[in-house]
Amino acid sequence: MIAPGFTGSPLDRSEPIRIDPAAEIALAAAPGALLLDLEEYMPRLADGALGWSPLPALAPEERVLLGTIDGIARYARIDPHAKGARRSPELFALLTQLPAGEMATYATARSLLDWHARHRFCANCGAASQPIRAGWARRCPSCGTEHFPRTDPVVIMLAEHGTAAEARVLVGRQPMFDPGRYSALAGFLEVGESIEAAVARELFEEAGVVAGAIRYVASQPWPFPSQLMIACIAQVADDTVKIDHHELEDAMWVTRGEIAAAFNRAEGARFNPPAPHAIASTLLRAWVDGA
Amino acid sequence: MIAPGFTGSPLDRSEPIRIDPAAEIALAAAPGALLLDLEEYMPRLADGALGWSPLPALAPEERVLLGTIDGIARYARIDPHAKGARRSPELFALLTQLPAGEMATYATARSLLDWHARHRFCANCGAASQPIRAGWARRCPSCGTEHFPRTDPVVIMLAEHGTAAEARVLVGRQPMFDPGRYSALAGFLEVGESIEAAVARELFEEAGVVAGAIRYVASQPWPFPSQLMIACIAQVADDTVKIDHHELEDAMWVTRGEIAAAFNRAEGARFNPPAPHAIASTLLRAWVDGA
Repeated sequence: MIAPGFTGSPLDRSEPIRIDPAAEIALAAAPGALLLDLEEYMPRLADGALGWSPLPALAPEERVLLGTIDGIARYARIDPHAKGARRSPELFALLTQLPAGEMATYATARSLLDWHARHRFCANCGAASQPIRAGWARRCPSCGTEHFPRTDPVVIMLAEHGTAAEARVLVGRQPMFDPGRYSALAGFLEVGESIEAAVARELFEEAGVVAGAIRYVASQPWPFPSQLMIACIAQVADDTVKIDHHELEDAMWVTRGEIAAAFNRAEGARFNPPAPHAIASTLLRAWVDGA
Repeated sequence: MIAPGFTGSPLDRSEPIRIDPAAEIALAAAPGALLLDLEEYMPRLADGALGWSPLPALAPEERVLLGTIDGIARYARIDPHAKGARRSPELFALLTQLPAGEMATYATARSLLDWHARHRFCANCGAASQPIRAGWARRCPSCGTEHFPRTDPVVIMLAEHGTAAEARVLVGRQPMFDPGRYSALAGFLEVGESIEAAVARELFEEAGVVAGAIRYVASQPWPFPSQLMIACIAQVADDTVKIDHHELEDAMWVTRGEIAAAFNRAEGARFNPPAPHAIASTLLRAWVDGA
């Protein structure tokens, strides 16, 4: 069972309620309704889980219904003046204390609030838009266009060369990585591409390797700001690597044993592995286990 | 080898050239550069392929570099006054005459041009934005935000009940479908979801079935306007169906033999299958073949 970080939220998304304003108002007014504790996108933790407070009086356009847990509504606050979220090392340190399901709930809230903060105007006509559908869309009062939160698919993949005990996969490092860290290669899927086409293109662009058969392994949402990470393994017949130094500082082929040593922080390990909540970690571990 | 419709474009996307304006200008000026023949998103076909014409003089912000084929640039025209694309039965009839690779090239052009037509204003501040990066992004001159074409992931899936010869999958029909047609269930993946979470949610919402193990089968871009279709199969232990009649008119369990009969248009077939260029067709055929 593969369970990447940021997956397994206990929320029932209660989608039908979003388009039923009366039901949503009743849900918000019901006893026990809760608001996610956030301060500039930073969660407050309580007993190793996300912190919540009683839902205060908020106008419908200032709240987003994340969903329900045991019938009790869970909201986040849409601040009409909030700025978009930024990455922060403190946040990462905090998130690693949470189980994956709590991270998934946080991911949903963060991506939604960041989307509202960066999409206050209608891309079709430029007028100011307003949240609708319990915070899951915005509508332009001028031209009537409805806008929905965006999710950008990203492919993240290992090229695999050889079989069985001889098999190796390609890991690379970007200049911004922590010292010694290597990870799977990755890139945004583009308009007009399948997952497989994007995997093949990125591997060729970044490392000059030609993908053969491609197999899907796992996926996760990545809320910085709002990606869908799609993890794959691509067989390659030729292990000659030609790095694109705009993208990668280095790349190398590693064996299952070398990856296990990296995760075990073994002495003499060839590299430091990706963070445990990143799907690159899930992907490398899955490959070690035979994926 | 699974090859869904809208996949396998011969284009080299030439991504590095997009951020090198001098190289892009040289490419556009080189002999042989071509422009995709489109009239309000309708392609002109020539010898069973997309039609192209010599690239006329266009300002950089009025052209999008689709990529190159054998080093020759292929462009589409960004009309600064174009409206967004609409579905048309005539277009579908035309597309079905094309091989999948040509459909993939068309998909890329259509999704990009439609995105430009619907995103002329900055969602962050409301000012008019301008195409940059050879048509692969827009930039706001007022606040500096860069905007990229969006791709919306959609999960499309079969619930599978039973094993081997006893196995059946669930197909459903929406009221808008042609008479007798049934297809896989589908829905937009939401912010904060993995592919697996979206598959489980959609199956439960639309048909009341609880997904167990989920396996990925294939993907395709779907340019109406710009989806990434992600096809999966989810095992279910209980075949009790509870239809959401807001989404589906009917749903039924079908065997491999019944699906084969549908594709063969056999007399007495229980349903009409989805169109061959839709990934629902690929998914059903893959399942019949043992996926």
